[in-house]
Amino acid sequence: MVQSNNLVTFEGLANSSAYHTFLLDEEKGRLVVGAKDHIFSFNLLNISKDFSQIFWPPSTARRDECKWAGKDLSVLQPLNQTHLYVCGTGAFHPVCGFLEVGRRPEDNLFRLDGELYSGTSADFMGRDFAIFRTLGEHHPIRTEQHDSRWLNDLPNDLGGHRSLVNKWTTFLKARLVCSVPGPNGIDTHFDELQDVFLMSTKDPKNPIIYTVFTTSSNIFKGSAVCLYSMVDIRRVFLGPYAHRDGPNYQWVPFQGRVPYPRPGTCPSKTFGGFDSTKDLPDEVITFARSHPAMFHPVYPINNRPIMVKTDVDYQFTQIVVDKVEAEDGQYDVMFIGTDIGTVMKVVSVPRGSWHDLEEVLLEEMTVFREPTAITAMELSTKQQQLYLGSSIGVSQMPLHRCEVYGKACAECCLA
Amino acid sequence: MVQSNNLVTFEGLANSSAYHTFLLDEEKGRLVVGAKDHIFSFNLLNISKDFSQIFWPPSTARRDECKWAGKDLSVLQPLNQTHLYVCGTGAFHPVCGFLEVGRRPEDNLFRLDGELYSGTSADFMGRDFAIFRTLGEHHPIRTEQHDSRWLNDLPNDLGGHRSLVNKWTTFLKARLVCSVPGPNGIDTHFDELQDVFLMSTKDPKNPIIYTVFTTSSNIFKGSAVCLYSMVDIRRVFLGPYAHRDGPNYQWVPFQGRVPYPRPGTCPSKTFGGFDSTKDLPDEVITFARSHPAMFHPVYPINNRPIMVKTDVDYQFTQIVVDKVEAEDGQYDVMFIGTDIGTVMKVVSVPRGSWHDLEEVLLEEMTVFREPTAITAMELSTKQQQLYLGSSIGVSQMPLHRCEVYGKACAECCLA
Repeated sequence: MVQSNNLVTFEGLANSSAYHTFLLDEEKGRLVVGAKDHIFSFNLLNISKDFSQIFWPPSTARRDECKWAGKDLSVLQPLNQTHLYVCGTGAFHPVCGFLEVGRRPEDNLFRLDGELYSGTSADFMGRDFAIFRTLGEHHPIRTEQHDSRWLNDLPNDLGGHRSLVNKWTTFLKARLVCSVPGPNGIDTHFDELQDVFLMSTKDPKNPIIYTVFTTSSNIFKGSAVCLYSMVDIRRVFLGPYAHRDGPNYQWVPFQGRVPYPRPGTCPSKTFGGFDSTKDLPDEVITFARSHPAMFHPVYPINNRPIMVKTDVDYQFTQIVVDKVEAEDGQYDVMFIGTDIGTVMKVVSVPRGSWHDLEEVLLEEMTVFREPTAITAMELSTKQQQLYLGSSIGVSQMPLHRCEVYGKACAECCLA
Repeated sequence: MVQSNNLVTFEGLANSSAYHTFLLDEEKGRLVVGAKDHIFSFNLLNISKDFSQIFWPPSTARRDECKWAGKDLSVLQPLNQTHLYVCGTGAFHPVCGFLEVGRRPEDNLFRLDGELYSGTSADFMGRDFAIFRTLGEHHPIRTEQHDSRWLNDLPNDLGGHRSLVNKWTTFLKARLVCSVPGPNGIDTHFDELQDVFLMSTKDPKNPIIYTVFTTSSNIFKGSAVCLYSMVDIRRVFLGPYAHRDGPNYQWVPFQGRVPYPRPGTCPSKTFGGFDSTKDLPDEVITFARSHPAMFHPVYPINNRPIMVKTDVDYQFTQIVVDKVEAEDGQYDVMFIGTDIGTVMKVVSVPRGSWHDLEEVLLEEMTVFREPTAITAMELSTKQQQLYLGSSIGVSQMPLHRCEVYGKACAECCLA
């Protein structure tokens, strides 16, 4: 392992912090970052040399209501080819706006283009979701760090596994189980979903879902990486809804008639010709409200984590995965961020078969000078760079640094 | 800490093992030990110098059925002033017998006096209980190591806390919760009850119950000591029964009419004049069968463990407690056995108030030459000795060994 300083770091502004929300725009070569009271646009080539910033504090009136609060920019989504949609919780009042970014990189545009106050949809603004869908048409599903508050609202009876996947606008959920089987059938559950990364496969409809889970206990600290197949997730959403006849009942698989279009499917021409969820029949909405979760949970590939870390004082916070061609084939290289400001570079290699993987730690790198949690991570395959956010700044590092191991090794190494 | 060899050890017989069942007879000065195919009677003064043994293997017919099985003596109970009741699982067939021990120590009696085959009551014989009551009149409630098999038979819906207290003959249960509160209301549960010790207080009806719990996970190893008050346990048993209308229902507090005498109370003149549970009305038996558990769990004193150990490679197995007069008052000194053959001597001292205890490790002693689990522990206040059992032998050590710390310290030390 090499403790490398092969890093470019933006140390943050004195009057900002919380560089937690990333939007990577490979086409324009920019990384847009939502932070406290600011929005930044960095050049992917070198984040410290070329960046723009917009100061967007909460309004004076809002700020007076709650003097310690700033505005955390927590939603950054592409709206169309020239604009992003951006939201912040301005002193607890969600405020959204349109960010003009231009059509081409040469336009060199980066400005706030209209504000939009919204006092009602705090549930949507407050990061109360695990996966949500973009507003645009051609963008993949985006992931956000989940907020544990929301999970606590769940009925306890669902089994204590408080990890969820939201699906589309009807807000249908399925539990993601990430546990290690134990003796006597007692599993050890990693139940706090921290991050999700979608890894494309040959079949564009069936990405592999990489997740990072931690424990909810303050006594036992542990992290795990679980992989899910989109096929399994789809199967669970096509299976029975969780149902109970009343608060004193247990959750059972719903056996009755499911209205059409089935909640969980996207409004489309295929399913009844509805343009949006607004057009759905009352019956569908009522059913969706009383059946917010699927009965079956989603189990990970091979029914267990591909990686578990329990003997250390830190926990995993973020994950991105890079596909690497090595001498002996293709590997998925995971970059795992921690709550102490380090990044682990790990590769899973089959030990005989794909059902028996062994993780190999390639490198462990310290990203931030202070031990602060890594809260955002984006990977640019085009730039071959990794971008990392935390409370105190933004960093950038090359994905592979074979040269530090010398020329002889460089041709074959995964580092 | 002093690693002391102030130990007397009985190294075991070549053709025996499993010295797991202890019965301390302070009056006659003997420790009766049930082991594999043998019953021993040791002199409390020095277990290595004066002991008797009875060879009591399974019958040839039984042994042939299952060639690897011996007979583990797992029940040792006083029957009357001259006899003990002893049971063993003879090649899976429980066999009981009467052990004549005489009236006075001078009688010097120790012999098997009649065998009793019993093929039906495996549930009772198989150590499937956490606390059970003696057959005699003047003996306190005795405790036995619990068997996790039994706990697995419980419905999962009770909340995953699989620790129980059996109460008397109706087999009514209440959950013992031993957990550490965490952030967001998520507690870390120690859910495998390993041992129980009743510590008498000034009020003979209200002993303090010392328990040792471990985790059921094979990923996170941890142990905790929780204290319960008999008043709290009694309150739970007098509270609502757990009830559900059918398998698809949740457990709720039973609101209906409870038959008389209330299940959980002992048959007696006070409660309806029933001599034994055999005389109870059908209605009572039916109710007891369909309501085997109390709705409320029993929480520990101060709602948390007085001691938690999570950063080590061993777990607690046994506990006994000694009341010690020190210069500055009375202390409860805990002797905690582990699964690696060591004993920890720990005292809980109030840090300001009784609600904020701090445990102080006084000594840590290696008892058995091999790292084997300590499976039995008895304390003789009369002899001021501790007796310890394991798979490979029986040991004896003085409770307090102030002299090893020198004369100046001896008068005040708790060691």
